[in-house]
Amino acid sequence: MFQNFDSPTQPQDGPPRLATLREEMARQGLAGFLVPRADAHQGEYVAPHDERLAWLTGFTGSAGFACILTDCAGVFIDGRYRVQVKAQVDPAHFTPVPWPETKLADWLKEKLPQGGAVGIDPMLHTPEQVETLRTALQGSQISLREVDNPVDRIWPDQPAPPTAAITPYPEALAGVPHAEKRARLAADLRKAGQRAAVLTLPDSIAWLLNIRGSDIARNPVPHAFAVLHDDGHVTLFTDPAKVSDALRSHLGPEVTLRPDSALAAGLRSLLGPVRLDPASAPLWVLRQLEEAGIAVARAEDPCILPKARKTDAELEGARAAHHRDAVAMVEFLAWLDAEAPKGGLTEIDVVKQLEGFRRATGQLRDISFDTIAGAGPHGAIVHYRVTEDTNRPVQPGQLLLIDSGGQYLDGTTDITRTVAIGDAPEDARAPFTRVLQGMIAISRARFPKGLAGRDLDALARYPLWLAGQDYDHGTGHGVGAYLSVHEGPQRLSRLSTVPLEPGMILSNEPGYYREGAFGIRTENLIAVTAAPPLDGADAREMLAFETLTWVPIDRRLIDTALLSAGERDWLNTYHARVAEKVGPEVSPTAQAWLAGATAPI
Amino acid sequence: MFQNFDSPTQPQDGPPRLATLREEMARQGLAGFLVPRADAHQGEYVAPHDERLAWLTGFTGSAGFACILTDCAGVFIDGRYRVQVKAQVDPAHFTPVPWPETKLADWLKEKLPQGGAVGIDPMLHTPEQVETLRTALQGSQISLREVDNPVDRIWPDQPAPPTAAITPYPEALAGVPHAEKRARLAADLRKAGQRAAVLTLPDSIAWLLNIRGSDIARNPVPHAFAVLHDDGHVTLFTDPAKVSDALRSHLGPEVTLRPDSALAAGLRSLLGPVRLDPASAPLWVLRQLEEAGIAVARAEDPCILPKARKTDAELEGARAAHHRDAVAMVEFLAWLDAEAPKGGLTEIDVVKQLEGFRRATGQLRDISFDTIAGAGPHGAIVHYRVTEDTNRPVQPGQLLLIDSGGQYLDGTTDITRTVAIGDAPEDARAPFTRVLQGMIAISRARFPKGLAGRDLDALARYPLWLAGQDYDHGTGHGVGAYLSVHEGPQRLSRLSTVPLEPGMILSNEPGYYREGAFGIRTENLIAVTAAPPLDGADAREMLAFETLTWVPIDRRLIDTALLSAGERDWLNTYHARVAEKVGPEVSPTAQAWLAGATAPI
Repeated sequence: MFQNFDSPTQPQDGPPRLATLREEMARQGLAGFLVPRADAHQGEYVAPHDERLAWLTGFTGSAGFACILTDCAGVFIDGRYRVQVKAQVDPAHFTPVPWPETKLADWLKEKLPQGGAVGIDPMLHTPEQVETLRTALQGSQISLREVDNPVDRIWPDQPAPPTAAITPYPEALAGVPHAEKRARLAADLRKAGQRAAVLTLPDSIAWLLNIRGSDIARNPVPHAFAVLHDDGHVTLFTDPAKVSDALRSHLGPEVTLRPDSALAAGLRSLLGPVRLDPASAPLWVLRQLEEAGIAVARAEDPCILPKARKTDAELEGARAAHHRDAVAMVEFLAWLDAEAPKGGLTEIDVVKQLEGFRRATGQLRDISFDTIAGAGPHGAIVHYRVTEDTNRPVQPGQLLLIDSGGQYLDGTTDITRTVAIGDAPEDARAPFTRVLQGMIAISRARFPKGLAGRDLDALARYPLWLAGQDYDHGTGHGVGAYLSVHEGPQRLSRLSTVPLEPGMILSNEPGYYREGAFGIRTENLIAVTAAPPLDGADAREMLAFETLTWVPIDRRLIDTALLSAGERDWLNTYHARVAEKVGPEVSPTAQAWLAGATAPI
Repeated sequence: MFQNFDSPTQPQDGPPRLATLREEMARQGLAGFLVPRADAHQGEYVAPHDERLAWLTGFTGSAGFACILTDCAGVFIDGRYRVQVKAQVDPAHFTPVPWPETKLADWLKEKLPQGGAVGIDPMLHTPEQVETLRTALQGSQISLREVDNPVDRIWPDQPAPPTAAITPYPEALAGVPHAEKRARLAADLRKAGQRAAVLTLPDSIAWLLNIRGSDIARNPVPHAFAVLHDDGHVTLFTDPAKVSDALRSHLGPEVTLRPDSALAAGLRSLLGPVRLDPASAPLWVLRQLEEAGIAVARAEDPCILPKARKTDAELEGARAAHHRDAVAMVEFLAWLDAEAPKGGLTEIDVVKQLEGFRRATGQLRDISFDTIAGAGPHGAIVHYRVTEDTNRPVQPGQLLLIDSGGQYLDGTTDITRTVAIGDAPEDARAPFTRVLQGMIAISRARFPKGLAGRDLDALARYPLWLAGQDYDHGTGHGVGAYLSVHEGPQRLSRLSTVPLEPGMILSNEPGYYREGAFGIRTENLIAVTAAPPLDGADAREMLAFETLTWVPIDRRLIDTALLSAGERDWLNTYHARVAEKVGPEVSPTAQAWLAGATAPI
């Protein structure tokens, strides 16, 4: 079982640790210290070694940070975690601060009117973050001081950094040998007059070198740093314990392995200009280059855009992974529909069963994120993760929202279905249908080249808008190829102006949330593709989306009268293809269920 | 008759004028000279005095410029004018250059490899334009030299600048006295630490002082410059011939009148920082300030955004103007439907008749732009304007596209209808319906605050996109209140990120153009408004659009089967309101026609 259901922290552990931290801060002459959730690689998941925020405060959300002062400790959390934080931290010692509504700089200026030095660990913050904070603090007496992390000094049983083996990723699945990727990016560096690029994002390094790892949960990436030189050579800095002969042979003579302890010296010996991404690299890397007098070219990590444009092999892998995942999902939904209406199931039962069906494919490497199984009102908590403490019965007459995914060697999946347990609640049908209409609008879209997520986002929201409704999250995020389930730079979001390009994989997941009652979200993954040609001399070349996910959408929740003919056609065609693709591969019981679940409306 | 149908220029006049200009350029030591279409106020229409481009080259389009070198004369025109330019200029002496595909700087570098001084009239170019060009010319031997306009020196019978009377605009229609506008903007200047703002856009000045003029066609604005001081006083620089006692009394003691000849001295005597809009002010203004050592604060013209947010009185005026205009349009459409199927009408007949119906309201001040009446294939020319030379019969069995508007004291209208002459051409019905669906999607939209035109544009295009179709213009432009029919900053366009705010008036005009066959466009004006409240605890506060235009949409061209129930409801409700609002005020003949034209589908 990948997922666990522990209530992850003991609030009572926080206060004594806080006291010890303050002693250490006093020794270092610090008026404050920032404890981010992030590690040096700025990802969504961190290793136990890097769970400083959770260890100190008890808060385990996937975003946020604490700012510890001598007489006050703020835990900055966004809207998703307002409820969770209250259960996880000791309110006598830690103060939740709504963020980003409250700016850290404003909070610091209020709490430290006399000024003082606030410590930061330069390994855990990016240059952009620190520069923004420093600018916002101008005019105050507060300074930022880069220090050795005091939490690491006082954490007696801090787990060691992970040392999971790095493994080659099959070239047949990647579609391009790493030598070719290195050569292409090196040519770009030469064109830009850059001598090297520092890579600090694990999925960038994994993509570039066709390798995978398992240093953290959910994301099959190794913790490492790398330097790409303008001749295509790469220096990979990582713990030698992770390296096998098979890996050495895969990487070949143009990739030099160095222990991570050699990183500082390796950086300081580079010739400039060196490309560095100020939005994701640790400030520490910038400092090494600056101190060695090396010119820095600030620019986006050069892997981000090519990684997002999936190769034909990666798209083929994604189709296979989604096909396999659909079989598991259909078995699961058939089981759920048979069992749940009897009553007695809980959210944890559902999560376990779903993971079981995915494991039964024999090819599940991990789940791609902790499954969200929100029964009734829990469905309205957008990032809900069930624990033993929150576990809720799955009650007949209510909705159940299940957002889940699998990591397979050939692809990463992410799917949300919202289903009625027994009889559909009547007041959920209109919003369910509107969410579906938005999801269909994106699925059917054709659009000119050059458009970004911002240009399309309204299509997904329009049916809800007409009813005065909306959802407070993006319509979709990028997805990796057996990499992170959240991958940039493309998004379907008002915030994204990155043009969509063929090969980019996105989620398409409008939603509707009625607090205290239910949540609705319907999510397929889609890939940007050249639109199939149409008849007619006036038909322009456009882009479109290929649907990757093939799992029934609960027909009982649809108010058919709200659908246009085109929407109904899309749904019936979709369901027919689900039956055709998945039907032959599921159990007889699931087959029988599928026939009903995919019947035309 | 406001509109005329002259083929406006004689191509044979160009070459001798060009020769004289080159002599003058030689005298001034210029290797080149730029002749823009624009005047000092950067508007869409210019006075005869400022028709330098047309006088020199013969080209009369509303955008473009010429670059005259000693052995070559490029006329830079965009896609709209590729055909027109060929008929208007002598190809032996003038070379049309596709723009913006060809950058002026690249063209200059190719034509002047040896370098040289290219003259510009600093009155006719903005600082942004000149700085962009200068940057693009870096590394070449080409310099830009600010000169007295050589065209003005060689144009023997150049018309004098206009001197039309400036008139007060009724406060009841403006909704706010000019003293209040001046005070509010002055407070903004003080807040920004700016001592004054230079205003160079006629519609900004007209709005700020509640005045109107008639120095140019179609836009009821005076040519003037103004300085708004941070105490709310305004200095208005304009020809004294335009000023009456009534105007003096309207402007009052806080607005000082100065002849336009005093502008340079007036600018040079200001205390800085002085706010200036580098996107619209003449470079000449910047030079006056710079030479006098006055600090310049570059920022948008402070009138632009408040002018776009119409007052309740302006919205009331817009409703009345549109109501009146709808009566004229309905009379026109009824006449057209009776006469055109007989054959024998031409585009010019149609334009004259329509202007006649508008005049019959007794309140038409001007048309708001030259009417576009495109029969059959002419409908596909987006900015078509009929002349005696291009005039085409309006043939039964074809489409006629009519885009027109009126300037009334209480508001500016702009409406496009595409109608079938007799029997509807069968292959036009599907695209007509898709265009209508896009237009309805915008009309019905509710959307959260903070969104811009870019966020909504896709809604208007989506039905066309599904068929592989699109249109190569924005979905809508801002519209003034008895001011310019094209007014910023808001637009419904992929290029506009200005948030929509209540009171902003926009056009909503998707289209479809089949070259050589027909054009379709359906346009209403709409105003941004707080969305009417909806039932339901989950209904959010949103914005919506109020429709201002009430004229039937040709039902014979609609493929009803393509419409959703919601779209059909919208159309039937719209037509019912048209009948109700306009029916009682039209002639019995038009009334009978209207009953059929607004019957439910």
